[in-house]
Amino acid sequence: VHIGPKADPAVERAVRDGGGEPSALDDADAVVWLDWRRDRFPALPSGVRWVQLPSAGVESWMPAIERDGPVFTSAAGVYAVPVAEHALGLLLAGVRGLATYARATSWLEGDDRTLEGSTVAIVGAGGIGRALIGMLGPHDVEVIAVTRRGQPVPGVTRTLAADGLAGVWSQADHFVIAAPATGATRHLVGAEQLRAMPHHAWIVNVARGTLVDTDALVAALHAGEIGGAALDVTDPEPLPDGHPLWSAPNALITPHVANPPGAMMRHLAERVRENVRRFAAGEELVAPIDPEAGY
Amino acid sequence: VHIGPKADPAVERAVRDGGGEPSALDDADAVVWLDWRRDRFPALPSGVRWVQLPSAGVESWMPAIERDGPVFTSAAGVYAVPVAEHALGLLLAGVRGLATYARATSWLEGDDRTLEGSTVAIVGAGGIGRALIGMLGPHDVEVIAVTRRGQPVPGVTRTLAADGLAGVWSQADHFVIAAPATGATRHLVGAEQLRAMPHHAWIVNVARGTLVDTDALVAALHAGEIGGAALDVTDPEPLPDGHPLWSAPNALITPHVANPPGAMMRHLAERVRENVRRFAAGEELVAPIDPEAGY
Repeated sequence: VHIGPKADPAVERAVRDGGGEPSALDDADAVVWLDWRRDRFPALPSGVRWVQLPSAGVESWMPAIERDGPVFTSAAGVYAVPVAEHALGLLLAGVRGLATYARATSWLEGDDRTLEGSTVAIVGAGGIGRALIGMLGPHDVEVIAVTRRGQPVPGVTRTLAADGLAGVWSQADHFVIAAPATGATRHLVGAEQLRAMPHHAWIVNVARGTLVDTDALVAALHAGEIGGAALDVTDPEPLPDGHPLWSAPNALITPHVANPPGAMMRHLAERVRENVRRFAAGEELVAPIDPEAGY
Repeated sequence: VHIGPKADPAVERAVRDGGGEPSALDDADAVVWLDWRRDRFPALPSGVRWVQLPSAGVESWMPAIERDGPVFTSAAGVYAVPVAEHALGLLLAGVRGLATYARATSWLEGDDRTLEGSTVAIVGAGGIGRALIGMLGPHDVEVIAVTRRGQPVPGVTRTLAADGLAGVWSQADHFVIAAPATGATRHLVGAEQLRAMPHHAWIVNVARGTLVDTDALVAALHAGEIGGAALDVTDPEPLPDGHPLWSAPNALITPHVANPPGAMMRHLAERVRENVRRFAAGEELVAPIDPEAGY
């Protein structure tokens, strides 16, 4: 197993614990790649049958993944817990007005909104969505999960298939976007969807910035069409200084920190160990990327 | 049952649902009092054997409560869910840096802290503390509960008695204050306690401002002794314009909104119904105030 672009002690230990042996690229059956960017990714020798990528969102890697080539696995689900935790923090911060209070230097009149008693729609019920559903379990909320095919998700009130998405915007109080970035999910939330939401709705995005139409969102925030938006990802990203989203009312922006680097390597090493073990045993790998689905 | 200082339809319905009959004060066996302040509280006719107060924290009512007088019940536990929800929001907002990001107008370098993997001490395990323990259940955290007598609390890693409190400040990463305001809890968190905490520690206070020594907290925030403080209650309260806490680093202040008015009457009505039912049946009331304990 080749570890690139440079070795990491925790990942090396994980490879050995999984029954593998760190090796040079030319001798490798498998590659564990630790760089988020694709530009340093090498041409693969023909012996490589599996590549483990470090990120859960892999839209930028799709051109490198061929139907007949080696299996690529993403880190989908690996960072689910820290990302879901951040999503819950953003949701509570939004609904409970914390961003407004954080900017205040005076004792304001209180706001009346609680998460308790509301309906939360989670668009995308992969690792992050499912971890968030678990975290919402003890809260007195209804949860609607939206998945590609609408297969039942444990712990929710209702599951919708992606083709029923149009109806969800008027059926929930708040929305958490946790779906992969694909051609089909680009601008999933645009002007029309924003208009359909309740005026108190908060949108949380911990997926990719492109799932939300930024211009439409800025307009909706200025018009007071929704309660607010708490975004860990933006389009463009990083959000440039002076971008209108920085000053839009009720926007709370965090700089893509839902999965912080400290937690990252620790969680990734666990997945590497498990996938090396499965690779050695000839078992199905966790989170293989489907070139057609795009994730 | 007399409802004062003025009638409320939801509470009137709750009194009837509990088997009671709204009445004038002079004819009343019991009083349900809906004003937070004590100054309008009437002299009680001798027929009154029970008074239901509207607040969970009743420190300002203690002078009115006599050992041989009518039983007073507090609203302890009634607002546990909205307050615990706010406490969790403040805790996540603190640990994940949301207050800093809310004030930013530029894409900052990310912070590396998650709640996952940390130890949270909850000082006071009444209704709010227990609701919060439930909400922390799906998070990968250790929870230490501190209660007056150290009796076991379900869902936590460890329970400490109040007399073992001195040791807790160095044993947890973060601290949520949810204990009643009594003589014994005044300035529970002072300079010494702040120094004993880890440098990354966040303090959340959803109890009463007086449990924290404000001057010591401001000094600790300026010195970087702790990670920060997220406070729904302050001392003095309301916090006056220009108070040093407004500009202390890593302070997040919300204006006593953990239990917002909208949720308040709905939750209180449920308690009134239950206590009227128990009063009529001669059963023990929920949340009687102990004049000696002070809550």
